Amino acid sequence: MNYNIMPDDMARPLIRGRGEGRGSRCLEASMCDPDAPVIGIMGTGDFSRSLARRLVASGYQVVVGSRNPKCFIALFPEEVEVTSQMEAASQADLVFVAIFPEHHSTLVELKPALAGKTLIDVSNGIRINLDGPSNAELLADMFPESSVVKGFNTISAWTLQVGPRDGSRQVFLCSNSSSAKSSVTQLCRQMGFVPVDMGPLSSSLEIENLPLYLFPSWRVPVICTLGLFIIFYLYNFIHDVLHPFVTSGKNLFYKMPIEVVNVTLPSVALVMLSLVYLPGLLAACLQLWLGTKYKRFPDRLDRWLTRRKQLGLCSFLCATLHAVYSLCLPMRKSARFKLVNMAFKQVKEGVEDSWVDAEVWRMELYLSVGIMALGLLSLLAITSLPSVANTVNWREFSFIQSTLGYCALAMATLHTLLFGWNRAFDASQYHFYMPPTFALVLILPLIVLLGRLVLLLPCMSRELRKIRRGWEKTRHIRFTFPEVVSHV
Amino acid sequence: MNYNIMPDDMARPLIRGRGEGRGSRCLEASMCDPDAPVIGIMGTGDFSRSLARRLVASGYQVVVGSRNPKCFIALFPEEVEVTSQMEAASQADLVFVAIFPEHHSTLVELKPALAGKTLIDVSNGIRINLDGPSNAELLADMFPESSVVKGFNTISAWTLQVGPRDGSRQVFLCSNSSSAKSSVTQLCRQMGFVPVDMGPLSSSLEIENLPLYLFPSWRVPVICTLGLFIIFYLYNFIHDVLHPFVTSGKNLFYKMPIEVVNVTLPSVALVMLSLVYLPGLLAACLQLWLGTKYKRFPDRLDRWLTRRKQLGLCSFLCATLHAVYSLCLPMRKSARFKLVNMAFKQVKEGVEDSWVDAEVWRMELYLSVGIMALGLLSLLAITSLPSVANTVNWREFSFIQSTLGYCALAMATLHTLLFGWNRAFDASQYHFYMPPTFALVLILPLIVLLGRLVLLLPCMSRELRKIRRGWEKTRHIRFTFPEVVSHV
Amino acid sequence: MNYNIMPDDMARPLIRGRGEGRGSRCLEASMCDPDAPVIGIMGTGDFSRSLARRLVASGYQVVVGSRNPKCFIALFPEEVEVTSQMEAASQADLVFVAIFPEHHSTLVELKPALAGKTLIDVSNGIRINLDGPSNAELLADMFPESSVVKGFNTISAWTLQVGPRDGSRQVFLCSNSSSAKSSVTQLCRQMGFVPVDMGPLSSSLEIENLPLYLFPSWRVPVICTLGLFIIFYLYNFIHDVLHPFVTSGKNLFYKMPIEVVNVTLPSVALVMLSLVYLPGLLAACLQLWLGTKYKRFPDRLDRWLTRRKQLGLCSFLCATLHAVYSLCLPMRKSARFKLVNMAFKQVKEGVEDSWVDAEVWRMELYLSVGIMALGLLSLLAITSLPSVANTVNWREFSFIQSTLGYCALAMATLHTLLFGWNRAFDASQYHFYMPPTFALVLILPLIVLLGRLVLLLPCMSRELRKIRRGWEKTRHIRFTFPEVVSHV
Repeated sequence: MNYNIMPDDMARPLIRGRGEGRGSRCLEASMCDPDAPVIGIMGTGDFSRSLARRLVASGYQVVVGSRNPKCFIALFPEEVEVTSQMEAASQADLVFVAIFPEHHSTLVELKPALAGKTLIDVSNGIRINLDGPSNAELLADMFPESSVVKGFNTISAWTLQVGPRDGSRQVFLCSNSSSAKSSVTQLCRQMGFVPVDMGPLSSSLEIENLPLYLFPSWRVPVICTLGLFIIFYLYNFIHDVLHPFVTSGKNLFYKMPIEVVNVTLPSVALVMLSLVYLPGLLAACLQLWLGTKYKRFPDRLDRWLTRRKQLGLCSFLCATLHAVYSLCLPMRKSARFKLVNMAFKQVKEGVEDSWVDAEVWRMELYLSVGIMALGLLSLLAITSLPSVANTVNWREFSFIQSTLGYCALAMATLHTLLFGWNRAFDASQYHFYMPPTFALVLILPLIVLLGRLVLLLPCMSRELRKIRRGWEKTRHIRFTFPEVVSHV
Repeated sequence: MNYNIMPDDMARPLIRGRGEGRGSRCLEASMCDPDAPVIGIMGTGDFSRSLARRLVASGYQVVVGSRNPKCFIALFPEEVEVTSQMEAASQADLVFVAIFPEHHSTLVELKPALAGKTLIDVSNGIRINLDGPSNAELLADMFPESSVVKGFNTISAWTLQVGPRDGSRQVFLCSNSSSAKSSVTQLCRQMGFVPVDMGPLSSSLEIENLPLYLFPSWRVPVICTLGLFIIFYLYNFIHDVLHPFVTSGKNLFYKMPIEVVNVTLPSVALVMLSLVYLPGLLAACLQLWLGTKYKRFPDRLDRWLTRRKQLGLCSFLCATLHAVYSLCLPMRKSARFKLVNMAFKQVKEGVEDSWVDAEVWRMELYLSVGIMALGLLSLLAITSLPSVANTVNWREFSFIQSTLGYCALAMATLHTLLFGWNRAFDASQYHFYMPPTFALVLILPLIVLLGRLVLLLPCMSRELRKIRRGWEKTRHIRFTFPEVVSHV
Repeated sequence: MNYNIMPDDMARPLIRGRGEGRGSRCLEASMCDPDAPVIGIMGTGDFSRSLARRLVASGYQVVVGSRNPKCFIALFPEEVEVTSQMEAASQADLVFVAIFPEHHSTLVELKPALAGKTLIDVSNGIRINLDGPSNAELLADMFPESSVVKGFNTISAWTLQVGPRDGSRQVFLCSNSSSAKSSVTQLCRQMGFVPVDMGPLSSSLEIENLPLYLFPSWRVPVICTLGLFIIFYLYNFIHDVLHPFVTSGKNLFYKMPIEVVNVTLPSVALVMLSLVYLPGLLAACLQLWLGTKYKRFPDRLDRWLTRRKQLGLCSFLCATLHAVYSLCLPMRKSARFKLVNMAFKQVKEGVEDSWVDAEVWRMELYLSVGIMALGLLSLLAITSLPSVANTVNWREFSFIQSTLGYCALAMATLHTLLFGWNRAFDASQYHFYMPPTFALVLILPLIVLLGRLVLLLPCMSRELRKIRRGWEKTRHIRFTFPEVVSHV
């Protein structure tokens, strides 16, 4: 748990002033390369100070422009020149604009001094801005004679301070001037960051939104999981708790915190796992039907395809919780009371051996298959860790996510089928005319598995492979040219 | 679970043509740096199109050569010039060859135009090629006056399209011309990838095979695990199920899915864990015997040493499954039936307290030690995640993998010894003259632990340390020179 | 488990000599770029040889200086020139000093030949050196006319040999000469490593210590965990085992390996989790009291703040072990004996139904809440993996670590409260006048949660937000300037 860069930390005085704590870490002014470009910074906040320190450590000459230089000189390291904004603008080759975007207009008077120079806008918005224009675009409009580069806004003052050793090292850059971008790219690399080119300045809106997102790719999968959980929970509550209470007055409300949850979780997990493999199936069907891969999918399907990882991880979370809940079952007082009461009953009735072979086999089998399904899902989950995913090649990745993934789905379905055993055909399970949950839950995975089997038929798979290599039903020219490279 | 770059995805039209979906992302032609080298691409498949788009976004001028330019112009972004192959070859400084290797010969007519230029071969084979020559070597033979660089074949069209933000960013390069290699290296970096120099063109065979491997380093460890599993399963089946059935007609077949598996898994885990530490021991013995570290080990031992990580992770998987299976035991119907029957029997026999202290202590102890062993193994497994392994230094790594690893092995052995208790000396455990599994399984780990203890004896460890710092039994000159650096 | 670069491995002959195993990997001398700088290496140990091979593969001309070149020529690849130290020093532009630091003085005679050149010191110490001077600083004193760069000491001969594909790729560099540093930075990148600039040569002490550290950031948290474990274990032992033995002669010593541990672990976990959130609270109080964020915190608090990640992971480890121990409880022989004895008693007493509703509800609730707390902690732990932490932005990170973290603390506290139920007010729990553990353990988390709630009061949170944006109680000028950038 990386607690060490939490908001509270930002409270700490990252930068030590001129007077205190210089010690052995201090850099001598003489170290600066006289040929290195002079970097200007407008603004004197936390970010400016961390940036100044980092730039000095990377061997640059730094000039900070402030409206009140005397007030702030003590907050910067000795090697940094703190002067007026005009002075800084004239001296610098590259200028970081590190002031609130709402105050960008105060820089207008520096226009002549900044003409022909590169401005780096590091600002962030307060909330996500979907319509534009971005701060960087507004700045570019304000300084048409300067080249504006957007970047460094995803880097925190803390990262600048400690150096890019841990945490994200990527700096997303965009600009309409490729020469300005390339000089900032070089600066970036010199400071130890990894520049990532995001294209023209029109990408700045996206770059400004980057640090404001709160798991955008997780929203739909999490809502989906929670929605399914609530629906299934209510269903199971009515089926397993309310029905016996209403019909025979049995008080089974104690089942609510654990047993009902533990019937709900595997249902959610199995449905979510089917939802991972359903869109791929739909995409294949669509391609077969259209006879080409060059038609775009409907937007919904497209977004669904990109959310499969998150859907899969939500499914895995539910499956793991289901395992933990199940393992807790025999530990509960209620299980112990029931067992002792059962023993009492058996003694009273004089039954020496209450063993029911079918019951035993059913449980041994579905437990065993369930553990295997969870094991396979764990492998999938581990492979989705970024650092592991980076070490496998395309073929290995597709083997794990597609082949092992379908195995896991098949195992989970079999687990549910074995759990159901013959009870789907037992009328006493249909309380209030509601079928038992496992019967409902099995519909979707069985459809997906069946669909997959159909696509594996030789005639179907041959057709599909042809389409995916570029063949089109309507236009056959593609294969007369040897120009499609075999990148799987 | 990273489902978002599975084969199905490749089905999606990655590149939008000239007509559709330009939006704010579109790059203006004016953005291209006039001094940037002109990059040519031969071929118009998925890969070419993604590559073209990426190159344009990185500020390059791109010319695509096609045998039928008019057909394909609509599939490329506006900034790209799509023209004849000859035209493209003449204009470009660097040329990507993105056509099927079997059609490389169609480029022969461009030989004069490509002379003195750098060709980048991005092709892959269909199956692993162990004998050579590689596609890149054949291309180099075909164009002796051009410099051929192999690379980018491990990058998918999808990665090129979305940019190297997630997924692997490494591009493996090799060439016989270091100037050509260095210009491609620079191009690579400009596009946001991390170039990895693999040496001369003779490495191209390996680079071409890279995306075709299916977990080559896991093959032997997985086969080993499966083999051991099958052997131990059969042994346990005969010992625990078949023997009671044959000798006393007891039907214990219900034990097959869980109980027999749960005796087999820890056996496999312990043997595999010993196999992790055995080769290091053998290597040390060999060095002591030969009196030098400059003799190569037998190839088998060498390969065994490089597979220890995989052996260890297989062992960890078995140990974890063993834990889950064990935790499932009391949940089963069979366990409940047995318990109730036991209660019935106790009541019938009038035994008030059936407590057996030795039995209780044995179980409490082996459970406790087993949990600790699993905890240590989990630490080892976490440290083997690439991103975690990168953050520890050499000394920390060796502390975890060697010191903690041996502790885990010792704990696991103790767990098995405690499980066995005094039953190894109990004749009734020897069904069919077969010793109980735990007795067999203990042989290898005890040998390894004993061997390790012997090597820790002062006389042995001093000798070994000397050898590992470069001393040789036969040649003593080494220590008269101060030229061995103390890299642990 | 990354067993493949353990100490034993270093025993392997990494470098093959001239005679053996050349094969397809061999590099032709003609490949070397004539314009590339000539790299000299002083020393002929393992490190020198791996370094030479790597440099040749990266296209450099390499000259090795040895006091006895004829003895060592066979150990280097063919492309490398092995000659006298003087000869090598004169030819080379950059010189790696790869000999034991205690023998640096043997190089003094090369002073004139090395003047004006860049020396790279790759040496490591034997033990952590806190006082200095570093080896690199001593070398710089010895060669005042050369530019000394410290670096490559964290890279093992093994990594050099196989290339920087797996394992850490970072090379930490420092130097007082920025031109020397920049040429080594470039060399570094050409070799495939990621250079990290650490500033002036005074950082060399830290760089030399880097490979010698043994989890420095874990020391205090681990000691803290062990200390708490021992204290709580003794307390619980006295309370649960010794007290019944002394007062009523009951032999409950069998509880020592599992039951006492399982009461101790959650106590440690909960206290440690409170310790994660306590320092942030103290920091906020201090800031509110001082009315500024520009005063440094006491050193102790500062160090505590940076150790929160480790404290949290220790807490998570204890919580997970607690879960595993708890799940083991019903599996034990002792639990089974107790259950059967309970059944016997019930039969003797003729109690048909022993169900106690309050007991059942208590257990169902605290189990359920406990599982949720563990689930939240697991999310926190996963997010603290370096590769996952790198993919989340600041806002997401703070949401998980702060919001979800406090939820986990609240859940864990609730779990303990529900476990306690009304027993805190039950005199029979106070053996030897010692309160039951859960009552003691609850103090700290309740304080932290209460403190957090107080800080969430509108008046407090407004004040705090103001201070964290740079406002100061004593100096109000800050807000008259628009110079604080909105980085969070």
